[in-house]
Amino acid sequence: MRIALDAMGTDLAPRPEILGALQALEDFDGDIDIVLVGDEPTIRAELDKHGGVSEHLSIRHAPDRVTAEDPPASVIRRKPDSSIVVGLRMHEADEVDAFVSAGSTGAIMATSLFTLRPLPGGARPAVGTLLPTVDSPCLLIDAGANIDCKPQHLIQFAHLGSIYARDTMGLASPRVGLLNIGEEPGKGSEIIAETYELLSRESGLNFVGNIEGRDIIIDTCDVVVCDGFVGNVLLKFYESVAAFIVSLFRRELASRAPDADFEDVFRVLDYSEYGGAPLLGVGGVSIICHGESSPKAIRNALAVAARAVRSDMVKHSARDMPAGARLEEAS
Amino acid sequence: MRIALDAMGTDLAPRPEILGALQALEDFDGDIDIVLVGDEPTIRAELDKHGGVSEHLSIRHAPDRVTAEDPPASVIRRKPDSSIVVGLRMHEADEVDAFVSAGSTGAIMATSLFTLRPLPGGARPAVGTLLPTVDSPCLLIDAGANIDCKPQHLIQFAHLGSIYARDTMGLASPRVGLLNIGEEPGKGSEIIAETYELLSRESGLNFVGNIEGRDIIIDTCDVVVCDGFVGNVLLKFYESVAAFIVSLFRRELASRAPDADFEDVFRVLDYSEYGGAPLLGVGGVSIICHGESSPKAIRNALAVAARAVRSDMVKHSARDMPAGARLEEAS
Repeated sequence: MRIALDAMGTDLAPRPEILGALQALEDFDGDIDIVLVGDEPTIRAELDKHGGVSEHLSIRHAPDRVTAEDPPASVIRRKPDSSIVVGLRMHEADEVDAFVSAGSTGAIMATSLFTLRPLPGGARPAVGTLLPTVDSPCLLIDAGANIDCKPQHLIQFAHLGSIYARDTMGLASPRVGLLNIGEEPGKGSEIIAETYELLSRESGLNFVGNIEGRDIIIDTCDVVVCDGFVGNVLLKFYESVAAFIVSLFRRELASRAPDADFEDVFRVLDYSEYGGAPLLGVGGVSIICHGESSPKAIRNALAVAARAVRSDMVKHSARDMPAGARLEEAS
Repeated sequence: MRIALDAMGTDLAPRPEILGALQALEDFDGDIDIVLVGDEPTIRAELDKHGGVSEHLSIRHAPDRVTAEDPPASVIRRKPDSSIVVGLRMHEADEVDAFVSAGSTGAIMATSLFTLRPLPGGARPAVGTLLPTVDSPCLLIDAGANIDCKPQHLIQFAHLGSIYARDTMGLASPRVGLLNIGEEPGKGSEIIAETYELLSRESGLNFVGNIEGRDIIIDTCDVVVCDGFVGNVLLKFYESVAAFIVSLFRRELASRAPDADFEDVFRVLDYSEYGGAPLLGVGGVSIICHGESSPKAIRNALAVAARAVRSDMVKHSARDMPAGARLEEAS
């Protein structure tokens, strides 16, 4: 399989991308080919420090770069030579099987939608993100693509998340929970209460009911459904809280118990362990990473992409999304 | 000052309430009188183990008890002899200056609204909750009273939170942030984008703009404004994440660095340090505690109540809430 990796996405690009790609190639041992997409001289200057291109690692020149100031929807038209557009065009043309980028989330989403298209029937794409829990991680969907959601959109997210969890997380029947402010049916806003009703009757889902903020971390379900506003706030809050607490303990451990090794505990709380977040509901594999991604996070995002390609998740999503959960019903 | 304490609120009532009250009396040394409200024989049986009633500690008999099954709005009518209704009626009649309860949040809110009334002009009451941050705690408002909010409601919350932070947290000009999914104006849902516009023009507020989920913990503002759905999810999530991480470290420390004392670090992350959450926007001091409150949490909630009474926060709220931020404008 071939994966296009945007080499210009992180704040420190292209270094984390190149180191992450090299690590992935070592770990996955010939299983994948990676195409670094971006400004060739810049990539080559860094890559030559680490042995240059190789059998499984090539460069695709894309001289332009998307910035945070570029309006996401206009990137495809105004920056056709940017690494995001070139990489996704490669995926559109089937030159690669997946695209991974730590660039502008909005631009990746808008360009993915344009090039990879929504799934047949028109599911509304959503971002799925893994959150660490006491047991196995759980998938939060939507983590920021859709701000104002109708019940039908949330039901789409439930299906997209469930299919992804089944295909890539090895769960036969993922437990799907609806994020709410109480457990009882009827709780929450009108939209959420109506979503509960519809999810209760929806087939093809293992719906376990409403879950509260406190339930996420204790592994009460595998897929948490919410709108992109709540999901985005929650995700960013989690990352910062985990980082805050880890830094607190790291500092105190250094002075009070300098010999104790806690790296494995810190690792549980390290967001980058989970790599990138898939954009679900489009006709391809598009993985969104943090702008601050480390080489390890890039390596793990490439692993996420490879798992998604290998599982045929996109084909299954197109096949298994019930028509009732598609966009024409929702509008 | 006199504070009515619902003695039947916690899951283990009346023990945590009584121990918390005794601790408060010891710490505040004659500064407050506490009235334990609830079933007198039950309270007396426990209280007699600790020296019985005293000059500053009395009992008001209220034989009935509100349960989680009681519809909140009907409690005032159906359970007039419950500890929540009796305690709030005492506050309504000026027999006490504040009410503290760890009972049903919905019942406390509904009964407070009925007995203490919304502030003149009709501000919509909201729950303010302190979240630990890297520096001083920040007030999250609304933490769950209002699910569907219009921009005018969110502006009320900004004022209520700002006045509370000024009066009880010792901040001359509290920084008020709007919780959003990006920093730029125009981000978020229509309601949030409109709220941003209105807050930018609002006088009497130190509005610092949009803040993201990741900004809360790093002390970018003193008051975080959001609707009650997002606030409730965030609060419950925070509590569970902090508890999860603390338990993780506590377990590992016990085996790897048994001699290291980390209790002060754990304390930073201990929600109960911050005591109860005030219901803001009503004509009295009504403090809502967790059902799982420890004696320490009850003691701290009594301290929150005393601080609110002493600061004349309610009078200031009635005086300083601009008419434009009141309910008639919002509806």
